[in-house]
Amino acid sequence: MSEITTPASGELETAQGGSERRRRAGGRSAERIRSGSDGTKYRNLVNTIDKTEILSAQTLEDIHDASLTVLEEIGMDVILPEARDRMKAAGAAVTPGSERVRFDRGLIEELITHAPKTFTMHARNPARTVKIGGSNLVFAQVASAPFVADREGGRRAGNRQDFRKLIKLAQHYDIIHTTGGYPVEPIDIHASVRHLDCLSDLVKLTDKVFHCYSLGKQRNLDALEIARIGRGISMEQMETEPSLFTVINSSSPLRLDGPMLQGIIEMSSRNQVVIMTPFTLAGAMAPVTIAGALVQQNAEALCGIAFTQMVRKGAPVMYGGFTSNVDMKTGAPAFGTPEYMKAVIAGGQLARRYGIPYRTSNTNAANTLDAQAAYESAMSLWALTQGGGNFILHSAGWTEGGLTASFEKFILDVDMLQMVAEFLTPLDVSPDALALDAVRDVGPGGHYFGTAHTLARYENAFYSPILSDWRNFETWTEAGRPTTYDHANRTYKQALDAYQQPALDPAAEEELDAFVANRKSEGGVPTDF
Amino acid sequence: MSEITTPASGELETAQGGSERRRRAGGRSAERIRSGSDGTKYRNLVNTIDKTEILSAQTLEDIHDASLTVLEEIGMDVILPEARDRMKAAGAAVTPGSERVRFDRGLIEELITHAPKTFTMHARNPARTVKIGGSNLVFAQVASAPFVADREGGRRAGNRQDFRKLIKLAQHYDIIHTTGGYPVEPIDIHASVRHLDCLSDLVKLTDKVFHCYSLGKQRNLDALEIARIGRGISMEQMETEPSLFTVINSSSPLRLDGPMLQGIIEMSSRNQVVIMTPFTLAGAMAPVTIAGALVQQNAEALCGIAFTQMVRKGAPVMYGGFTSNVDMKTGAPAFGTPEYMKAVIAGGQLARRYGIPYRTSNTNAANTLDAQAAYESAMSLWALTQGGGNFILHSAGWTEGGLTASFEKFILDVDMLQMVAEFLTPLDVSPDALALDAVRDVGPGGHYFGTAHTLARYENAFYSPILSDWRNFETWTEAGRPTTYDHANRTYKQALDAYQQPALDPAAEEELDAFVANRKSEGGVPTDF
Repeated sequence: MSEITTPASGELETAQGGSERRRRAGGRSAERIRSGSDGTKYRNLVNTIDKTEILSAQTLEDIHDASLTVLEEIGMDVILPEARDRMKAAGAAVTPGSERVRFDRGLIEELITHAPKTFTMHARNPARTVKIGGSNLVFAQVASAPFVADREGGRRAGNRQDFRKLIKLAQHYDIIHTTGGYPVEPIDIHASVRHLDCLSDLVKLTDKVFHCYSLGKQRNLDALEIARIGRGISMEQMETEPSLFTVINSSSPLRLDGPMLQGIIEMSSRNQVVIMTPFTLAGAMAPVTIAGALVQQNAEALCGIAFTQMVRKGAPVMYGGFTSNVDMKTGAPAFGTPEYMKAVIAGGQLARRYGIPYRTSNTNAANTLDAQAAYESAMSLWALTQGGGNFILHSAGWTEGGLTASFEKFILDVDMLQMVAEFLTPLDVSPDALALDAVRDVGPGGHYFGTAHTLARYENAFYSPILSDWRNFETWTEAGRPTTYDHANRTYKQALDAYQQPALDPAAEEELDAFVANRKSEGGVPTDF
Repeated sequence: MSEITTPASGELETAQGGSERRRRAGGRSAERIRSGSDGTKYRNLVNTIDKTEILSAQTLEDIHDASLTVLEEIGMDVILPEARDRMKAAGAAVTPGSERVRFDRGLIEELITHAPKTFTMHARNPARTVKIGGSNLVFAQVASAPFVADREGGRRAGNRQDFRKLIKLAQHYDIIHTTGGYPVEPIDIHASVRHLDCLSDLVKLTDKVFHCYSLGKQRNLDALEIARIGRGISMEQMETEPSLFTVINSSSPLRLDGPMLQGIIEMSSRNQVVIMTPFTLAGAMAPVTIAGALVQQNAEALCGIAFTQMVRKGAPVMYGGFTSNVDMKTGAPAFGTPEYMKAVIAGGQLARRYGIPYRTSNTNAANTLDAQAAYESAMSLWALTQGGGNFILHSAGWTEGGLTASFEKFILDVDMLQMVAEFLTPLDVSPDALALDAVRDVGPGGHYFGTAHTLARYENAFYSPILSDWRNFETWTEAGRPTTYDHANRTYKQALDAYQQPALDPAAEEELDAFVANRKSEGGVPTDF
């Protein structure tokens, strides 16, 4: 009896023995042709699967009721006199000499009924216009990271060159429906004029919908004008066609800061899109229980949404959820966790209860593109897909809890988003797909390589990933054992090479350049530095 | 105007500015205390979320109907005379002088009604006994890889030392409910006695339910006896208490090999558990369409399940699904793909239609523990959780399409499985969890660190991952920038150090050793080498 023998297991599935083993070994030996986006496969996504619910009808009402109690009995601090005046006029109880405002539950419930269930955000390229709400699913790029990273350059402060590269990537990949703000904060542009340069880039380098920061009235006004110029329409038309969106964060717990309130006023009054997103990390800015954090999220979101409707009934607004947990041993924020999944799914139930489009995010807290980055993101995608997210900010490129926009992570996310899109594509169960004739032709013991049924379909039969390395171990070893990170690094540079700047009407470009030059000559927006 | 300025964005969520930024930077600076399993948190899992359905009632019937047409009109090749005789006696049409057997659809439909909807698999430790079917969710370890890998030893042929280490890990982690076969094929043990040594190890090193390969009648009989000895019961009692399971793979397309059929006869006749799993890779051993591959999967599964009920009505059996796709450019098998997700979810609908417990798998085709390994596995977990898998083979450690059992991947999977379990734990929405009093205490502008509500809960508030590295970038950099792979490598060795062999009744151990010695003296099972 020899000590070393060959495997005796006959199980195809398990020991990969016999013909199957040889077949796959051969199959994996050839170099794959990798495919990304060629810019021609753009499609708007719908998510028609039944949404997962983790709250019962009763516990959904319990969270709703508790959040209205918060607004009624505790209230919010509203750090803008004009906003408090508008709230008082709408029927809220403003405590004299203080910033505290309390809201009758009936007032909130009435106001939010005016928010539209669905609306359209218009891009300068009509083919990139997106529908928000209902079954629609829109992916927006990473936003607002202070740092940017790739393998060669390491982790570095945001700058305009990287900003522009990331915008180009968002344009290049069809699965990215909109940008999401500045993918990275370009701190080499002075804050007084940063919005002018960045918004100009957003108009020129992409033809997709974009975001403006609510950092004071003048920046909102400049952004509105730039969006209008980009679309080549009048401000009157833009008021009927929302073309710009802003994210409004509450300063949790229970506070709305001045620039955020001002942003709601400027955007909602002009029928532009507000995404009202509390940032409620359970155990830090919100109660340590996910249910409690959801109560606070819901209170803050409903308050901001109600305020948009005080400003203008029917103004487009999204219910933003951003509840996750912190690591209670250190206070570090955690993302893509089981708790995040539950919060995302429960948030979807709340948004659907109100009939308001739901914004959530593709999150992770990894420091590099390792397995953690992938599983935290994949679990985020699981929750937001099953939970019915309509608008997914930070869809691609967000890493390190939002501190860094990663070029490689951007590609990983694009690949995963494309997989989600493919998963959501209804299964073809036509008689032809059921393939009875093919089964009959092949019969017991045969194989389907090279059959007519296979040959007619093989090129587009399955999703072809950008990054997955399915070569066999030996071939992969000969190739230097590249990881997903290696493939992503190569791919993002190829995508930048393949980027094509979308056409912009020369008159619009001229008008845009003149507007930016003029506003710069005026000093942009005053800063204290 | 200076060229370099500080970020001006006030968005908490996005630019991580202000107090939040400082808070998280501080929070992330402390070293986390990592926690794994201490062996005291074992629990059986139930998955009560509503299952996702991608087939309509009609298309589910279409697949069902087409698969019965396959069995009725095309039939299966049945490579065992005894099985054909049993099938003929049960009413199937055996073509004289051939291995082809055709099955009237009414015959199949009647037989499968006898399969139990739920059953219990008994471990030698009653606390590790598992329920199969219904809402129950059971995780079984990787099975049957020819290779094994870890960082230090690289990828190598299976051997008994690694086999034993992997079994110990399955015992150590509570989230692993059963082993799944040989985690790696120990080819340093001669095939004639391999099952004796391996099954003896499985009894001694774990107290969880185990699997036997169906590679000839004698091996099944030896396994049954070893399982009986391990439990310290009579064969009569074991016939009322299923204690051993076998995976039966069809040789797709449409063929059942002799050892597999023999395994059904030996196991089902003694009321032990059969997992009937076609291995239907779309485009290779099954039609290139997922719907067609599901038709074939269903035909083969129902045929095997019906055969278990011909052997013994009421014998416990699972509906196994293992439909994925191949990379049509190379023929390489692909796992954890969107197509795999659809097949897993549709397979769950089919299994529930028949009321038969559903076996599926946690798959990936990665060559190392990189992002691909994580996203393919996470997407597998997404599908099998939402699709209602009851028994998940290859839950932990399976990589490279099943060719390799990876120590590091085992830990990654354990972490992800624990996250799934945490996700499935109902959200606490009690009045106390809604936390209205805590919100009232903190009020606008405060924080929840150190409040009474937080302090009372912080230790067990959230799932504490094994591998996720949530330290801030600077601290992580000082630590040498470890990846998930690094953490998993360290963790699996720590887990082996912490492993405790479960007690075994000395009389049972003596009987087991005597049985194995005797069977070895008889030469085990004859082989031709």
